Amino acid sequence: MNGKILILTGSKSDLPVIEKCTALLKEFEIEYELHISSAHRTPAYTKELVTRAEADGFDIIIAAAGMAAHLPGVCASYTVLPVIGIPVDSGSLNGVDALYSIAQMPPGVPVGCMGIGSAGAKNSAVYAARLLALKYKNLHTRLKDYSSRQEKKIKEQDAALSS
Amino acid sequence: MNGKILILTGSKSDLPVIEKCTALLKEFEIEYELHISSAHRTPAYTKELVTRAEADGFDIIIAAAGMAAHLPGVCASYTVLPVIGIPVDSGSLNGVDALYSIAQMPPGVPVGCMGIGSAGAKNSAVYAARLLALKYKNLHTRLKDYSSRQEKKIKEQDAALSS
Amino acid sequence: MNGKILILTGSKSDLPVIEKCTALLKEFEIEYELHISSAHRTPAYTKELVTRAEADGFDIIIAAAGMAAHLPGVCASYTVLPVIGIPVDSGSLNGVDALYSIAQMPPGVPVGCMGIGSAGAKNSAVYAARLLALKYKNLHTRLKDYSSRQEKKIKEQDAALSS
Amino acid sequence: MNGKILILTGSKSDLPVIEKCTALLKEFEIEYELHISSAHRTPAYTKELVTRAEADGFDIIIAAAGMAAHLPGVCASYTVLPVIGIPVDSGSLNGVDALYSIAQMPPGVPVGCMGIGSAGAKNSAVYAARLLALKYKNLHTRLKDYSSRQEKKIKEQDAALSS
Amino acid sequence: MNGKILILTGSKSDLPVIEKCTALLKEFEIEYELHISSAHRTPAYTKELVTRAEADGFDIIIAAAGMAAHLPGVCASYTVLPVIGIPVDSGSLNGVDALYSIAQMPPGVPVGCMGIGSAGAKNSAVYAARLLALKYKNLHTRLKDYSSRQEKKIKEQDAALSS
Amino acid sequence: MNGKILILTGSKSDLPVIEKCTALLKEFEIEYELHISSAHRTPAYTKELVTRAEADGFDIIIAAAGMAAHLPGVCASYTVLPVIGIPVDSGSLNGVDALYSIAQMPPGVPVGCMGIGSAGAKNSAVYAARLLALKYKNLHTRLKDYSSRQEKKIKEQDAALSS
Amino acid sequence: MNGKILILTGSKSDLPVIEKCTALLKEFEIEYELHISSAHRTPAYTKELVTRAEADGFDIIIAAAGMAAHLPGVCASYTVLPVIGIPVDSGSLNGVDALYSIAQMPPGVPVGCMGIGSAGAKNSAVYAARLLALKYKNLHTRLKDYSSRQEKKIKEQDAALSS
Amino acid sequence: MNGKILILTGSKSDLPVIEKCTALLKEFEIEYELHISSAHRTPAYTKELVTRAEADGFDIIIAAAGMAAHLPGVCASYTVLPVIGIPVDSGSLNGVDALYSIAQMPPGVPVGCMGIGSAGAKNSAVYAARLLALKYKNLHTRLKDYSSRQEKKIKEQDAALSS
Repeated sequence: MNGKILILTGSKSDLPVIEKCTALLKEFEIEYELHISSAHRTPAYTKELVTRAEADGFDIIIAAAGMAAHLPGVCASYTVLPVIGIPVDSGSLNGVDALYSIAQMPPGVPVGCMGIGSAGAKNSAVYAARLLALKYKNLHTRLKDYSSRQEKKIKEQDAALSS
Repeated sequence: MNGKILILTGSKSDLPVIEKCTALLKEFEIEYELHISSAHRTPAYTKELVTRAEADGFDIIIAAAGMAAHLPGVCASYTVLPVIGIPVDSGSLNGVDALYSIAQMPPGVPVGCMGIGSAGAKNSAVYAARLLALKYKNLHTRLKDYSSRQEKKIKEQDAALSS
Repeated sequence: MNGKILILTGSKSDLPVIEKCTALLKEFEIEYELHISSAHRTPAYTKELVTRAEADGFDIIIAAAGMAAHLPGVCASYTVLPVIGIPVDSGSLNGVDALYSIAQMPPGVPVGCMGIGSAGAKNSAVYAARLLALKYKNLHTRLKDYSSRQEKKIKEQDAALSS
Repeated sequence: MNGKILILTGSKSDLPVIEKCTALLKEFEIEYELHISSAHRTPAYTKELVTRAEADGFDIIIAAAGMAAHLPGVCASYTVLPVIGIPVDSGSLNGVDALYSIAQMPPGVPVGCMGIGSAGAKNSAVYAARLLALKYKNLHTRLKDYSSRQEKKIKEQDAALSS
Repeated sequence: MNGKILILTGSKSDLPVIEKCTALLKEFEIEYELHISSAHRTPAYTKELVTRAEADGFDIIIAAAGMAAHLPGVCASYTVLPVIGIPVDSGSLNGVDALYSIAQMPPGVPVGCMGIGSAGAKNSAVYAARLLALKYKNLHTRLKDYSSRQEKKIKEQDAALSS
Repeated sequence: MNGKILILTGSKSDLPVIEKCTALLKEFEIEYELHISSAHRTPAYTKELVTRAEADGFDIIIAAAGMAAHLPGVCASYTVLPVIGIPVDSGSLNGVDALYSIAQMPPGVPVGCMGIGSAGAKNSAVYAARLLALKYKNLHTRLKDYSSRQEKKIKEQDAALSS
Repeated sequence: MNGKILILTGSKSDLPVIEKCTALLKEFEIEYELHISSAHRTPAYTKELVTRAEADGFDIIIAAAGMAAHLPGVCASYTVLPVIGIPVDSGSLNGVDALYSIAQMPPGVPVGCMGIGSAGAKNSAVYAARLLALKYKNLHTRLKDYSSRQEKKIKEQDAALSS
Repeated sequence: MNGKILILTGSKSDLPVIEKCTALLKEFEIEYELHISSAHRTPAYTKELVTRAEADGFDIIIAAAGMAAHLPGVCASYTVLPVIGIPVDSGSLNGVDALYSIAQMPPGVPVGCMGIGSAGAKNSAVYAARLLALKYKNLHTRLKDYSSRQEKKIKEQDAALSS
């Protein structure tokens, strides 16, 4: 396999966004385990999942949350594994609150912040693959293939314009 | 005495802001204990301070933080004591990031958010006094006096204009 | 009973948001009285309701308003009871105007600001319960139970993912 | 004379901004009375000043405030005289909070909002003159003269460029 | 009659917003003339309408526009009559662009800015009535009646809550 | 010569920003005429300068303004010459108001908006050169040279890092 | 003909926005070639299209993109032809991200930024016509006609109001 | 050694920010090569540096840029190596433009976005270390040590408060 990712989402309502991530992880044949666990409503469970992640063989943590969106930062405080954060566009501020809360981490405890919503969720999978390719060389080829497929698809769309 | 407050600030650099709060708590003769403890850099210490706060006889928690500003929300996840949050205007976004991160808490785990910076720090002390007055009746009179002094001061400033 | 809350909302159109608060207050068995009263259109009535709140045995005031959202601040100017403010996401700015107007109170007259809209309304009830637990010890257990139920619900949602 | 204006400012620290207004009112020979009175810290005094404004022969109210900036809206709730609001750029949000709070008034209780800070303060005087010119015909000529002087000054600056 | 208002709107699509204003002007029995005229697409017609407004007996100009929303400011540059501006929430920025463009006028050429969209349009009529009451005393009573009706309506809504 | 540009700035205080533009125009040997003329304080002069620009042989108009920043849009309404707009970072909103006001023009009357402040002023000169190169072929080579010099300068800075 | 424009759009989903541009280019009888090519997913193809644009006889490049919206800036880095950028309102931030990313180009590599979405797309065609009129004199008359038709249409709408 | 990082910054003026990153990389004994190369002013050099990065043995790319801040995204389009982006707070928008431009990448080409300015630069080094620890096990211990030192430092600051 190509590495193993722990995915946490702060609320059941974020699952449709997370599916953009998991669909792509399957395509890259990257193993993942998905949990609903809130930074604030299940702090002990979040801590437990994150602190044992390393021992359980996880390479990376992906965390998605909306509004105050503390989950990715809280994860990063419990582990030295890389944390990828997805700001979800729930709530009245459309995700700009989550974006600030995930990106503006204090010095020393970083989170790699993706874009807001579905685009960010999809990119979290690609970014995870780029990270894991440092260790799982097989992913390097898959990423090149993925880029080529993206390129090919756009060129076909472009060609279809003039036909 | 008039209650006991645990004050947490995420960074040593926030102390000048916190002094606006502590100066006023002294005026109200409210006991407090001030700690520097970060949600992300000392998560275990933060948890320890907050979870034992109730047993240690604290009534309220005041937490100040800038940028991602997870500290107040993290405190609220470890206790059922009321948490008052102060968004600090550190960083390039002047505290709007901290304001969103403190105010936009998910349903079930509330933080009472004050204004950004010094005004918010001062208000955290007054708000704490209003909360504690539910239990320590003595504070009721002090709050009325405080309001009267505020009123008197502005009226004197106003009178000075026309003199 | 577990305390008594005066709830004010600036407009009839805010009632659906307020129901997120009142439903939870009922669950906590906290007594409340709900009024529609505008800071600007019924200033005398607002003043009357708030100034007599203390004598009428109210412990806390919850005020919800959208746009300029002066209602919570105006309440805080008439009483030393704790005021909890809910920014409503009415109008073209989706509640960011109300958030600023409620959170950015001047030094001396604090409002504890919740998040925007339904999440904030729900949290106003939980925050009120945390405040009232300073006085009504019975609420302490209820809050612990509420936190446990939240935790249990998320863990069940999480368990359902892998089944 | 050319009408009479009641000017309120919520804080002594706003006086330098207000001077941009009063200097111009003097130029237009419009009478004014300036008071420091806060919407929140001296609510009774604010109400008293505003409610007797009409009987005292005032034509217009100008109110300046920063941050939550409820003062202009509170004035508008106590009178049917026209209220002109000046958002002051105090606090970490540079006046955008005050701008929203003054402009976004609910239907039925309008405030005419000026720009943020000094430019807005200066414009409050010109706008007041335009309003008073409806009643004091003498101001019509003065406004035309003022516009001409503005025009002349810019044209002289422009001519100086090429000399 | 109670004064005469020239209403300009920059686009046919703004008419539904303007109707909130005209409906209320009719209620106040204030005469108005409504024109579609753009600051940018019909600059000559806009200038013509505004510059002859004074001679044609108009007391006030109300101008509504969205996005860049230059119309109210352009009107204010052609006349010394008071100009009331309504930021319309067309376009992707939901009217915050129009709000800034109308409120942030340079020193010397003021526009009295209302709130964004329908609420602002309704308020433009009430504000116009407050301005015209300086000259048409009859409007003073109507404004008092209007305030009373608003107050009565809210109190009835409030009474209905507890029945 | 390489074309002729009419530069308008709404205020004398914008001249330091404009100098970033004119310095570069001199480098490109593009002729220009600089005027201070306000959209609101000298509307007739602005109209006169812009409407005769074509007959006077100008190819392009560059307009700089801060805050409400109507000048570029007003220019675009008087001519079919291309207008380049520079949002100036004067006022409390640091130029975001001017950016919205210049970029968000209504359909049919475009302004090409540059970045805020000095960077935008410098770019207005380069953009003008790119436009004029459609007509003055000589500028094509100069632009290529300018790009090469930029490239060379950065490469020298880069080389200096490792020396 | 009246010049030739290369239009690039970063995503197939932006085509409905682009149609506002192409419909108007047809009206002006300006030739164009439309391609889907992403700054990030087909960087080589984008470079190829832009670098050969000059040799292929293109006068101008119009580029539309949403979110990070690097496409217009990337185009401007490969050519000295004028680039017109259209910020598309895709994603959770409604195009304000794209507006900043297109307008805030660094000194030396300008993009002329239009408004967000459909209005900006339509204006990109008019702006392109204004630019091309520097070279193709025929367009000058067409632009005057276009302005007249716009003016006439609004005047007819205005006349219809009072009929 | 512990991996090798290619650092690109779009402007010489960003070097002080980058030093917060390089100082920490030295502490982690991670090799790096720092270049000034602009996405727009030296596009060919940027492409050359990034495309050969993999063959040259680099594991990760860190890119810092302000304003439109296309550099990190452009890097991500040329490689499948992980790219870490630092939004620099240059320009009038204080880095919010750079934050949006770096975080809001389109689906398929991710950049891991850090916070704005110095805090983000420091975190880019820690995040890089977390990524490289997937491959260079030695870094795992160093990261644990770094976290411990952070924790110890804050606890010492905290202890000093009460001494």
